[in-house]
Amino acid sequence: MIKKLVVVGVGLIGGSLAAALKQRHACEQVIGVVRREETARAALASGLIDEASFSLAELMPSLQRGDMVFLAVPTLTVNQTLEELKACWNTEVTVTDGASVKGSVEQAAVEVFGRVPENFVLGHPIAGSEKSGVTAADPDLYDKHRIILTPQAHIEQDHISRVRAMWQAVGAEVLEMAVWEHDEVLAATSHLPHVIAYSLVDTLAHDSENENIFRYAAGGFRDFTRIASSDPVMWHDIMVANREAILKAIDMFTNNLAGLRQSIAAQNSEEMLDLFTRSKKARDHFSALLEQSKTLAQDYSDE
Amino acid sequence: MIKKLVVVGVGLIGGSLAAALKQRHACEQVIGVVRREETARAALASGLIDEASFSLAELMPSLQRGDMVFLAVPTLTVNQTLEELKACWNTEVTVTDGASVKGSVEQAAVEVFGRVPENFVLGHPIAGSEKSGVTAADPDLYDKHRIILTPQAHIEQDHISRVRAMWQAVGAEVLEMAVWEHDEVLAATSHLPHVIAYSLVDTLAHDSENENIFRYAAGGFRDFTRIASSDPVMWHDIMVANREAILKAIDMFTNNLAGLRQSIAAQNSEEMLDLFTRSKKARDHFSALLEQSKTLAQDYSDE
Repeated sequence: MIKKLVVVGVGLIGGSLAAALKQRHACEQVIGVVRREETARAALASGLIDEASFSLAELMPSLQRGDMVFLAVPTLTVNQTLEELKACWNTEVTVTDGASVKGSVEQAAVEVFGRVPENFVLGHPIAGSEKSGVTAADPDLYDKHRIILTPQAHIEQDHISRVRAMWQAVGAEVLEMAVWEHDEVLAATSHLPHVIAYSLVDTLAHDSENENIFRYAAGGFRDFTRIASSDPVMWHDIMVANREAILKAIDMFTNNLAGLRQSIAAQNSEEMLDLFTRSKKARDHFSALLEQSKTLAQDYSDE
Repeated sequence: MIKKLVVVGVGLIGGSLAAALKQRHACEQVIGVVRREETARAALASGLIDEASFSLAELMPSLQRGDMVFLAVPTLTVNQTLEELKACWNTEVTVTDGASVKGSVEQAAVEVFGRVPENFVLGHPIAGSEKSGVTAADPDLYDKHRIILTPQAHIEQDHISRVRAMWQAVGAEVLEMAVWEHDEVLAATSHLPHVIAYSLVDTLAHDSENENIFRYAAGGFRDFTRIASSDPVMWHDIMVANREAILKAIDMFTNNLAGLRQSIAAQNSEEMLDLFTRSKKARDHFSALLEQSKTLAQDYSDE
């Protein structure tokens, strides 16, 4: 049971955690830290939060062991949030976050505090929706979804356990891996596909025949490019935050594509069939794993 | 009303046309031309066809104006089928096909007959299913789907009208465009996405971390890579048949991706945001068009 839950950024991600914990009676009180009065009013009116605050720095000293701070602000804003907390950091309360990239959050913490504080458990819920904002909060958003925690070796076990228990209470499966591994896995399975989808749609939109091209597109194209409708600002931030891993993933893909292009140009049937068969096998083999994860269609929106 | 419908290749595409015309009482008799006894038995037993034949060449001379031949064989097999018909081609009957690439069919016809016969109307139904074979035949496969016809200027108008009427009778919308335009549009909207999906999954499957990589993939990845489960042989054939247009599409995409990679590497926020915003706008703008087309999720399987 969490005594006080402080949600910093009451949008889809933060609001859904508050809603989920409230519905399951897993926290006593929710305080929302917001920037705009409008968000405060909406979150209070919907019963998502019990109290609103405009300053985490003012709240921080009063928090105690058993309380939880969830930083649900955009990835590139975490740095600024930590700066504001530098003078008033409280080592008793458990702190976690939901940013899509973990290396940039780790780096921000190291820059501000010298190393990641012992009570700051980095995490990333692999869940989301096409909707965003406080009105999109959904108490079932994390149910049967995966949460990846990336705690450093010196993080206090008690805080890790509290974060783990919180996510399990809302129905999620909690996994742990290293920061670099998280960022490489997400670069390959989420960030690279978004880069490709944006680039593919942009390629076709540049074509003079584009009205026709989109008009005659089949259903496969619709599914394939749906992620190109994701929020440009959020994805810009992810590109900046996870640049090295994304560039590495793009280069691996570009090399593979160049090889396939060469097989097509040379009409090398064996190479084409090998690659298509290998790929179909891998996709089919892991289809079951993907079904298990039951993640939503969209990767999440930070706000 | 079609008197005799001859379906060459009674699989998903051919069988579904037979089923659809029968259900709508739009043809008097269906003759299935098959290679295997097993297919003949299954198609006869299910009432999909009234008669089975193992040779179109033997049937061809007896066909008359008002009869229809639908070539629903794999793209690279059309050449061989036309060769077999060379000596017994009948100019009264209307002939059409359903191959995914039109340039290669046109070329095959020119090689065999000197030019596309006046009663051969090239076509491509933009419909399909993950299932294949005679048991997958679905009378509603073409309902509200698009059919692209690519008749040359010398094709007899009466035959074009008959093919058009046939597809309209099963609920499809019929469009006309040039062979080259069809092949470029499909290269961009269908063939290129398949190349990319196969290449992306193959890239990840090669990675030593691939078990993890697929395990943590989010829903966006599942949708994005579903088309990599398509039939390798069919897609090999399409790569061979539409090589030039596909290479051109790959090169356009590769250039765009290289530009985006450069923007990410240089952390050029303006360029990244421009591309993501442009792409999201194009995708959202054409979303309605894609919805209208109501095509199935998979591009079709030739068999």
